[in-house]
Order: sequence, then structure tokens, then C-alpha cells
Amino acid sequence: MFYHKEYIRPRYEETDQMGVIYHGNYITWFEQARSGFFRELGYSYKRLEDEGYWIPVIEVGCKYFAPAKYDEEVYVKTSIAAHSGVRIELKYQVYDVETDTLLVEGFTKHATTDKNLRPISLKKKAPELYKLVITCFENE
Amino acid sequence: MFYHKEYIRPRYEETDQMGVIYHGNYITWFEQARSGFFRELGYSYKRLEDEGYWIPVIEVGCKYFAPAKYDEEVYVKTSIAAHSGVRIELKYQVYDVETDTLLVEGFTKHATTDKNLRPISLKKKAPELYKLVITCFENE
Amino acid sequence: MFYHKEYIRPRYEETDQMGVIYHGNYITWFEQARSGFFRELGYSYKRLEDEGYWIPVIEVGCKYFAPAKYDEEVYVKTSIAAHSGVRIELKYQVYDVETDTLLVEGFTKHATTDKNLRPISLKKKAPELYKLVITCFENE
Amino acid sequence: MFYHKEYIRPRYEETDQMGVIYHGNYITWFEQARSGFFRELGYSYKRLEDEGYWIPVIEVGCKYFAPAKYDEEVYVKTSIAAHSGVRIELKYQVYDVETDTLLVEGFTKHATTDKNLRPISLKKKAPELYKLVITCFENE
Repeated sequence: MFYHKEYIRPRYEETDQMGVIYHGNYITWFEQARSGFFRELGYSYKRLEDEGYWIPVIEVGCKYFAPAKYDEEVYVKTSIAAHSGVRIELKYQVYDVETDTLLVEGFTKHATTDKNLRPISLKKKAPELYKLVITCFENE
Repeated sequence: MFYHKEYIRPRYEETDQMGVIYHGNYITWFEQARSGFFRELGYSYKRLEDEGYWIPVIEVGCKYFAPAKYDEEVYVKTSIAAHSGVRIELKYQVYDVETDTLLVEGFTKHATTDKNLRPISLKKKAPELYKLVITCFENE
Repeated sequence: MFYHKEYIRPRYEETDQMGVIYHGNYITWFEQARSGFFRELGYSYKRLEDEGYWIPVIEVGCKYFAPAKYDEEVYVKTSIAAHSGVRIELKYQVYDVETDTLLVEGFTKHATTDKNLRPISLKKKAPELYKLVITCFENE
Repeated sequence: MFYHKEYIRPRYEETDQMGVIYHGNYITWFEQARSGFFRELGYSYKRLEDEGYWIPVIEVGCKYFAPAKYDEEVYVKTSIAAHSGVRIELKYQVYDVETDTLLVEGFTKHATTDKNLRPISLKKKAPELYKLVITCFENE
């Protein structure tokens, strides 16, 4: 299974008054990790958009085991968890760099659409990306 | 079932380049709605923290049906979805004010802890809040 | 001088680990206040964009006297500080609702452009808005 | 003059519906750059806080020349612009990595305080940091 590691150093802005990273910010980290994932694949999110496709998030989930903290670097391990012709699901695991502890785990499910948010078949419309997704998923 | 309606007017800052509200921001709206929920109950989040308790989020989930847009007011309908002595689950539904369409639905699960993030029994340590939670859940 | 008061209840997400509202978030509050200002004028930001105009921020400044805190409501007093045919400057003052203390003061300067970010004369292209701006500025 | 370069890849979350990075987010980038600046100096922000000091922002300013865009990497050149025993001013310049164009320029002014936000003399209380600040400022 292909996976990407995205390194993130938590910002002060991302903390809250509990002294840890605000729980909502991991969703943004997932997005940054997803961008990195597709960039490493050679098919950047930006390129996807330039070609007229969007992969909007239709569901997100996140479990919190331990909090990330300001300035203590983490990495987000990202992989394809499932796919169909019109859906992609990615899985994210946030680890503390120093201790390699799993802090947070989550997923995003995506539709594949055109710029008017109408569903499209990735398989038909963006076959190159579709093949990459399959390859990521299957290769172990 | 007791519920609270929190009205929110989406900010420009909350949009993204798809021209809609960025998907991660609904988690923050849930938090604002949760604050409003407890405030309406007469037991503000702030009071909870002042008394030495925290109810950190341990899981969050969110499904997206239609996007909220800049400046188009929404309300978040919030209620207790489940509870035990040491856990609370809240449910959120984001509706467009003008059309009353359901845009987004989600939940948060919370542990009940002291300020060192050690689990506590809400039933024993904060019985007043515990009773409120039960009442919210049971009254129909 | 016409001014608008925008009421904001600080979110948990907006705090940082100093236990106060993160300094960068006031810029977003200015934006929300600006939206409210133009809405109260009867010329919403949204309408402006629908008509093909943008008023992008070209400069921002902010002075911090005392911190806003989670859940302690503030209002942002907003007015026109200066204007020309192609520039608008707004002024913001953030007050604590309970104590009426001035917490933060700032400004934004705006260009007036079309959707390709090319400068336009508000006076010529959007005379109705231009008149409103003058009226806000002059009436005392 | 010592300066630090902080590389940032703009997130989707940071865009707005104008299709560019939302103007308020540069303040957060300044913060990230400032953290990097002090880390490179060998005196991390975190260490400063651990030793009981804070350097809260008391003023911020920002001028926008051209917009940063999603996924197009920038760097923030950061240096000390001025200092006294109880004040530090930093200067930031955001450049596009590919074209080396200056996009945004800004500053932050900081008080030096203890954890109760009472002013302290950096010179007396944190002489090691004070010397570093002077050295950064003077060496050319």
C-alpha cells in the first residue's frame, strides 16, 4: 500500500486555551496531507482542479487519542482506504515525530465531480488519476 | 428532546476557492453551537471550565449534503444524542435559514475529565450538569 | 458619522494557549464587522460581488490594548475613516460588551477593483455605493 | 542583519472565494515565521514560554501587493526591525518561491511580559535572549 508522510509543525494559532491543538484543525491537516499525497503521486490537487475536476469531501471522521502540541512536529501518514468509480476514501494517521505515538486517526470520503459539483466517473473522465488511485490501493 | 438553535452568518474567511464554506469549518460551528447549547441550559462551557472540568472531544464525524455559502445565514440544531456517566455525545444539523434545507449533519463524542485530562465521572463530580444532560436527553 | 456595531461571541477555536483570543483573529472579526457595516447600509458585500466588484484589502493594521476572551461577548464599532474615488479606509474598534472597555483598534484599506483585480473607479462604476460611502463619512 | 527564511505551502483552507489566500492568514504566517526565526536562533518560542516569558503582539501591520495562491510555495523572510529593553519589532516579507516576487510585507511589535502579562525587561530577566536580539539586529 502506497502512503505519503506529510510533516507539519503545529502553529501557535492552532492551539486553544486547553494548551493543545484545537480538535478541528486536524481536518485541515488531513487536507494538507491529502495535497501532499497527490503531489507525491505526480497528480497534484491543483492539476486536478486545472483539468476541471473537484473531489469535494462528502464525509469526514476523526478519533482523538492524544493531543498534538505547539511546535512539536507531527507527521500525517496518508493512504487510500477504499475507492470506486465515483468515490475515493482516504485514511490519515497523525503521529508525534519524536515519540512516534499515534495521536489522531481519521478519514475523508470524496465524490468526484466537475466544477459545477455534478458527479463524474473518474474512471471515464480522468483515467490516468483513476489508475494511480487503484495502484496506490493495491500495491502492498 | 431538548435542542438549541445556534444562528451563524458565514464569514468570508470561512469560504475557500470552490466558492463555498470550507468543509473543516463546520467542526468549529459545531463547537459554537455546543457552547450555545450549554449556555441555554444555564450551564455554560465557561462555567464548566471555571469549576475545573473539561469535556474534550474524543471523536467527531460530519456528512456533507450541500454547501453553506458566504453571508447566507444558517442555524445549527444541537441536541444530546447519547450519554453515560463518563461520555456525552451531541448531534448537530446545519440548516440553511432561508430554505430550511439540511446542509450538513454531524456528531461529537466527549470524555469528561479534570484539567489534567484525567477521566472523571460527571455523575459524581458534576451531578447538576449530569442531571441536565439526562433531562435534555429524555424529555420529548 | 455613521457607524455599525457588530456583536461577536468569541469561539473556543479562536483562543490560543495564552488563554486569550489569538491576535490574528481580529482581522477576521474586522471582516465580519465590515460585512455587517455594508449590510446595514443596504449594500451587502455579497451584492457588491454579484455586481462584479471586489474591494480587496490592500493594507491592514491593528493595535492590541487588552485581550478578548472565550465566550465574553464583544462588539466591533465600524466606520469609514477615509475615501477617495478608488480607495476606501475603514476603522474598527473592538469593545468588551460587559465593561465597554476598548480592547483592540484597527483599520483596513481597500482598493476597488473588478473581478480580475483591475482597479476601477467606484465613483463611475458603482455610483450608488460611492454616494453611500460619502454619506457615511460626512454625516455627523 | 540576520534573517530567517520560513517556507510555507499555502493550504486549501487558507484560500477564500476570491481564489487567493485570505488576507488575514498572513498574520498566522508571520507567527509561523517568527517561531522559525527564534528556533534558528537557538531560542525557541516554546523555550521562552517554558522559562516563564511571553512576547505578546501589541501591534501588527500588513501591506498586500499581490496574492499568494493555493499550493504555490512562498517563503517569509523575517528579521528584527527594532528593539528596546521592553519591546521587539519584527519585519516580514512574503515572497513567491518560483518568481521571487514580493507579495506581502508586514511587521509585528511585541511587549516582553511574564505569564501574567506584566511587562518585564528582557535585558534584565532574559539577558541571553536580549543579546541574541541585539546581535541579530546589528550584524550586517
